[in-house]
Amino acid sequence: MLSKNELKYIQSLCQKKQRQEEGVFIAEGTKLAQELLQSNYQIKKIYATADWESPSKLNTECVFVSDEELQKMSSLQTANQVLLIVEQKVQTSAPELKKGFTLILDGIQDPGNLGTLIRIADWFGIEQIIAGAGTAELYNPKVIQSTMGSFIRVNLWYLPLAQVLEATTLPVYGALLNGKDVHQFDRVNDGCLIIGNESKGISEELLAFINHPVTIPRIGGAESLNAAVAAGIILSHFRK
Amino acid sequence: MLSKNELKYIQSLCQKKQRQEEGVFIAEGTKLAQELLQSNYQIKKIYATADWESPSKLNTECVFVSDEELQKMSSLQTANQVLLIVEQKVQTSAPELKKGFTLILDGIQDPGNLGTLIRIADWFGIEQIIAGAGTAELYNPKVIQSTMGSFIRVNLWYLPLAQVLEATTLPVYGALLNGKDVHQFDRVNDGCLIIGNESKGISEELLAFINHPVTIPRIGGAESLNAAVAAGIILSHFRK
Repeated sequence: MLSKNELKYIQSLCQKKQRQEEGVFIAEGTKLAQELLQSNYQIKKIYATADWESPSKLNTECVFVSDEELQKMSSLQTANQVLLIVEQKVQTSAPELKKGFTLILDGIQDPGNLGTLIRIADWFGIEQIIAGAGTAELYNPKVIQSTMGSFIRVNLWYLPLAQVLEATTLPVYGALLNGKDVHQFDRVNDGCLIIGNESKGISEELLAFINHPVTIPRIGGAESLNAAVAAGIILSHFRK
Repeated sequence: MLSKNELKYIQSLCQKKQRQEEGVFIAEGTKLAQELLQSNYQIKKIYATADWESPSKLNTECVFVSDEELQKMSSLQTANQVLLIVEQKVQTSAPELKKGFTLILDGIQDPGNLGTLIRIADWFGIEQIIAGAGTAELYNPKVIQSTMGSFIRVNLWYLPLAQVLEATTLPVYGALLNGKDVHQFDRVNDGCLIIGNESKGISEELLAFINHPVTIPRIGGAESLNAAVAAGIILSHFRK
């Protein structure tokens, strides 16, 4: 049974301000719950319906609720058995970009796109993403859900991108419309790839840091590709 | 000035049933309006705010409305100067799959994914898509908006996919998890590529038709890629 105050509190976590004040976020669904319970994320509380198959050992308080109650808390169209309140991870030290591959996001505004980008990074074994101002917030429920659990395996920092790129000695690749054909690149082990904003592309300020502009050749009439799709295509070539 | 009945009518076009009865759909925004007005789509009516820069010759009735009125009609978060009511195109004869490249969609449910897939097809110069039952409706406002105008250049048919694949003599490629590495394929000029449902993949019934299973090698921990991202990656290799 759920109190009115509890419901109100959970619903309030749809707002970024409230999430930041509380230092928590919401994750939903049986699959994501299973992955989170096995991860090093701190689970603060679990709300589940009677049909949820919980793991045998459960170290977190679990409140059983009705289907209707779960739906009221949920930001999904169809709630799926379980909802977790999870502690946000505080990313402390900024990563040093000296080796390995890092994805750089310059103003990815759409939460679904950000989630998809995190999932793509995870697919291609990229564990570091750095996002600048203007990129959606990781703990937005739409981002969390669209990562399909990949946010657990990929680290995301919010940092001033010009400073980050100023400091790195790695080659900087950027998805642009007038660069070198993506098919002409060999595997890239160490480097950064900048993906720009959905409508404005990569900002003026960051263009100067790009030493390898990359282009996906266009054959037809579309003016651009979706940012996540472009990232997926470039990474599939870089990580072959 | 907009009458209450007119507003009600436009809002009703958010529903598939109503769109099908009326044989029309809604398209919004200055860029899409410009593209549609230059296309062979029949524009039934235009609603625009005073700041819309209309083309010099306009053969369609244009009703000027206030910003507030446009927002009330709009399915966008922020309405953008103009909204068109456009006649749906009736696809008559089914395409014969004897030559060229066709994208086959097996139950793409998410309107945003369908729109993105149409945009990807357009980018890679693919003019034919065939969708089976279970794929979102082309004229859903979310599909139309997320194609970014590409639906104008790409033809989409809704057909029973097993029959279509039974009839074709073209090689049939399918995005699967246990196929041949996408990097090992040469350019493909003639063929069909099947992209499966977001959670269930390609249906049992269609698996039998695939003579070239294609896989994007996974390096990290994600269980799958978004359907549109997978299509983009495979097409970038097939169309190189």
